[in-house]
Amino acid sequence: MGSLASMNEDGSCSTNIVNPLDPEEFRKQGHMIIDFLADYYQNIEKYPVLSQVEPGYLRKLLPMSAPYIAEPVEAILQDVQKHIIPGITHWQSPNYFAYFPSSGSIAGFLGEVLSTGFNVVGFNWISSPAATELESIVMDWLGQMLELPQSFLFSGNGGGVIQGTTCEAMLCTLTAARDQMLSKIGRENIGKLVVYGSDQTHSAVAKAAKIVGIDPKNFRVIKTNKSASFGLSPESLRIAITTDVKAGLIPLYLCATVGTTSTTAVDPLGPLCDVAKEYGVWVHVDAAYAGSACICPEFRHFINGVEGANSFSINAHKWFFTTLDCCCLWVKDPSTLIKSLSTNPEYLKNKATDSKKVVDYKDWQITLSRRFRAMKLWLVLRSYGVANLRNFLRCHVKMAKRFEVLLASDNRFEVVVPRYFATVCFRVLPSALCKIRNEPCGEADHHVHQKHANEFNRKLLESINASGHIYMSHAQVEGIYMIRFAIGATLTEDKHVIKAWEVVREMVDTMLKLNPQ
Amino acid sequence: MGSLASMNEDGSCSTNIVNPLDPEEFRKQGHMIIDFLADYYQNIEKYPVLSQVEPGYLRKLLPMSAPYIAEPVEAILQDVQKHIIPGITHWQSPNYFAYFPSSGSIAGFLGEVLSTGFNVVGFNWISSPAATELESIVMDWLGQMLELPQSFLFSGNGGGVIQGTTCEAMLCTLTAARDQMLSKIGRENIGKLVVYGSDQTHSAVAKAAKIVGIDPKNFRVIKTNKSASFGLSPESLRIAITTDVKAGLIPLYLCATVGTTSTTAVDPLGPLCDVAKEYGVWVHVDAAYAGSACICPEFRHFINGVEGANSFSINAHKWFFTTLDCCCLWVKDPSTLIKSLSTNPEYLKNKATDSKKVVDYKDWQITLSRRFRAMKLWLVLRSYGVANLRNFLRCHVKMAKRFEVLLASDNRFEVVVPRYFATVCFRVLPSALCKIRNEPCGEADHHVHQKHANEFNRKLLESINASGHIYMSHAQVEGIYMIRFAIGATLTEDKHVIKAWEVVREMVDTMLKLNPQ
Repeated sequence: MGSLASMNEDGSCSTNIVNPLDPEEFRKQGHMIIDFLADYYQNIEKYPVLSQVEPGYLRKLLPMSAPYIAEPVEAILQDVQKHIIPGITHWQSPNYFAYFPSSGSIAGFLGEVLSTGFNVVGFNWISSPAATELESIVMDWLGQMLELPQSFLFSGNGGGVIQGTTCEAMLCTLTAARDQMLSKIGRENIGKLVVYGSDQTHSAVAKAAKIVGIDPKNFRVIKTNKSASFGLSPESLRIAITTDVKAGLIPLYLCATVGTTSTTAVDPLGPLCDVAKEYGVWVHVDAAYAGSACICPEFRHFINGVEGANSFSINAHKWFFTTLDCCCLWVKDPSTLIKSLSTNPEYLKNKATDSKKVVDYKDWQITLSRRFRAMKLWLVLRSYGVANLRNFLRCHVKMAKRFEVLLASDNRFEVVVPRYFATVCFRVLPSALCKIRNEPCGEADHHVHQKHANEFNRKLLESINASGHIYMSHAQVEGIYMIRFAIGATLTEDKHVIKAWEVVREMVDTMLKLNPQ
Repeated sequence: MGSLASMNEDGSCSTNIVNPLDPEEFRKQGHMIIDFLADYYQNIEKYPVLSQVEPGYLRKLLPMSAPYIAEPVEAILQDVQKHIIPGITHWQSPNYFAYFPSSGSIAGFLGEVLSTGFNVVGFNWISSPAATELESIVMDWLGQMLELPQSFLFSGNGGGVIQGTTCEAMLCTLTAARDQMLSKIGRENIGKLVVYGSDQTHSAVAKAAKIVGIDPKNFRVIKTNKSASFGLSPESLRIAITTDVKAGLIPLYLCATVGTTSTTAVDPLGPLCDVAKEYGVWVHVDAAYAGSACICPEFRHFINGVEGANSFSINAHKWFFTTLDCCCLWVKDPSTLIKSLSTNPEYLKNKATDSKKVVDYKDWQITLSRRFRAMKLWLVLRSYGVANLRNFLRCHVKMAKRFEVLLASDNRFEVVVPRYFATVCFRVLPSALCKIRNEPCGEADHHVHQKHANEFNRKLLESINASGHIYMSHAQVEGIYMIRFAIGATLTEDKHVIKAWEVVREMVDTMLKLNPQ
């Protein structure tokens, strides 16, 4: 522990124990951890994808308090293997198909490791110029890959910032929008501000609205429907806005989504921005999941109309290989963020800031301290290049199509909503269950059949997840319980998708045989 | 790129190129990055501590857009060495004494690397039980080490959560306090809520207050003074509160600080909590920097009185060896956080949550997605043990005392405020400058002398930082410009402190000779 482990008899602090950052010890233990993780990836298919532990399992295994005396890293790694890994849900498993993926990659990993090693706190430019400048550069690169309008890039008058998650991106842009509005109408009117989303919008928007002081009764959840594939209708938005305006309320902020969480629905950005513009509403585009795909020319049309929005974000940690966390947010007018979020205490003052020639990202986000997240995005972009990145995403989509074909080959199943990207929402049809029971499947008992089907699909999902072979999650639209099959774990290959299909089909067979409803 | 690099001719996705998470490639590149970082630590003293680049340096060195074709990791690492490292301010250098340290360690690094490798998204218990359970356990461990009252621990009725930064801890607790209050008084009264801090409180509190919709004119900055060592006076708090109450306003939230950013001042928690309690004010204790030291019995008294607070936080990434980011927040009543911050969309519903036997940390924080931060805290606690951790901190304090002694040996210097921990605030005295100019240094010209001294100390700091030998930062109290010498970088040993003193003294000598003011 070098200078630090214990004091010498003369009270000085330099001893013969290894310093906690001793380079040679770092090298030794660092190699050990890399091997540990490489072995983990090698064995990852052996673990149940969804952890099978019971609540409270770990407290029974670990001591009641921290050790007084140091323990060797070997002992700790043994405990990771024995006690932690069984409690992990293996998001990196090729058999992971739940929620949206958290797509790790070697390049993303290396970038995070470099950033952790440098351990710089890049709150402003001077605190580590490379952290700020690399972030501005890669955000312009990625913006170009997405063909974002110049107005979102530093090379225009906008700019990009890497936040932790979409929740933060929403919170920052909503705060900026709120303050811009209140500066015009007076802050006593905060109770009149209205935020809009659809019934498919991520719950993070309602949470952000609540945090910034929007009255929860002024959070509009606009209904979508299956006939419009659960996209938000511009006409419905207009009706909601005009109703609010008539009631003396003030429309503030719309979150439009490209790739909703339940069904990967896409809101029509262009027409929605047109309506919003008429009423001076800030539009944020949440493309957390599906934004990544838009680097492929054939998917770019999903964000057509983004030029009318005020801000746009994607989660590179979802489907862009950077590891958690890396939310890329672009804004057309960074000064709105800065007006709301800047601080300027004496202890952070410096000449570079005073020169106004630099970006101080602390003023673009909630937190002061910030990690060097640009490193991982830079490594991903360079290690794979645009060509490979497009192909990775295309292969995921291709595998999702294959899964659709497999589902279509068995008339007990239906794909509930259109598949745009690499997520398939499916279920066992009510008719399949009626058939088994030799019942007619008429319209008369529609609700009863639906309920049965929901119950069956819920049990199906539970049984599959409990088997540990694959892990999927669920969602519900218009009363229909769907199983979500989201491809995007980096290790997933065709064979895993085919195996997953077999797991699903066999479980349905078993359930129908055992208990024909 | 395995299944993903390119599609086969038959359109399938399994090829002979390496998968982006191929275990053997991971092992190879992983070892490479460890060696790169070990070499970095080995050479770290060769780099100027404060980066000496000019604004915009990196855009001139990097291409205008992302590469289309993949680049080898060797080429990227060369660029890190050539283009990034010169733009980094070396927070891990033993000669880093600015702001507060970001104290890395091998154990903290390994923990972060494991967490990155597993790459789980632990928003709720089911998404990775180990991530949640380990967090609850280590937060209880650390709470015990700090002798927090049982009411802050899970083993009491409270609990701990690891947030990214103190900014988030403040934002969450302030939101909880606000909603608790508004549910009593009606949300139309949001404009009447008042938040309190001192003129030494971190700027993050004002920012959090602004975000949650507190009227900036209702943010009270209570004056402190040198005679009370810049601690917040309970009497001043009472006056501020009663004044507000008389004006029809509603006192909401006090942030008390243990170890302020400018001078490491300590607010007297017990008496402040007593006043706050009378008026139903939520007290958050921000011990971001100095909280760590309170695991040593001789420093524990600095948080005496914490039992009267509602919430308490420390930044383990500052002075507790975990690497950025790791803010440990304890609350007495987690249900207040949950009431404000919970979401429950269908796609996240699960049996474990329904059973109410588990913690879902997404409801204790701003963001939904969250990294497995407990891993690094666990590794730090186990790898070093309580005994070593105390000694690390004591050695830092000891080195700060040594620096004080060195300053005291030269009567041109003064230590401006009492040193409680490992940060020394000092300056060259006005009298030293008067002496040089053969001027009397009487009270009459006090302000002029002060101004000269400030100017001299500012230039001194700039010159020292520009030399690259060491990096310090500054603060200002009661018009006095001080240089802050914060010990805490893990690699710092006695010899670096002695060298730093020589750098300071020699620069003063040079400046006084060259330009005797």
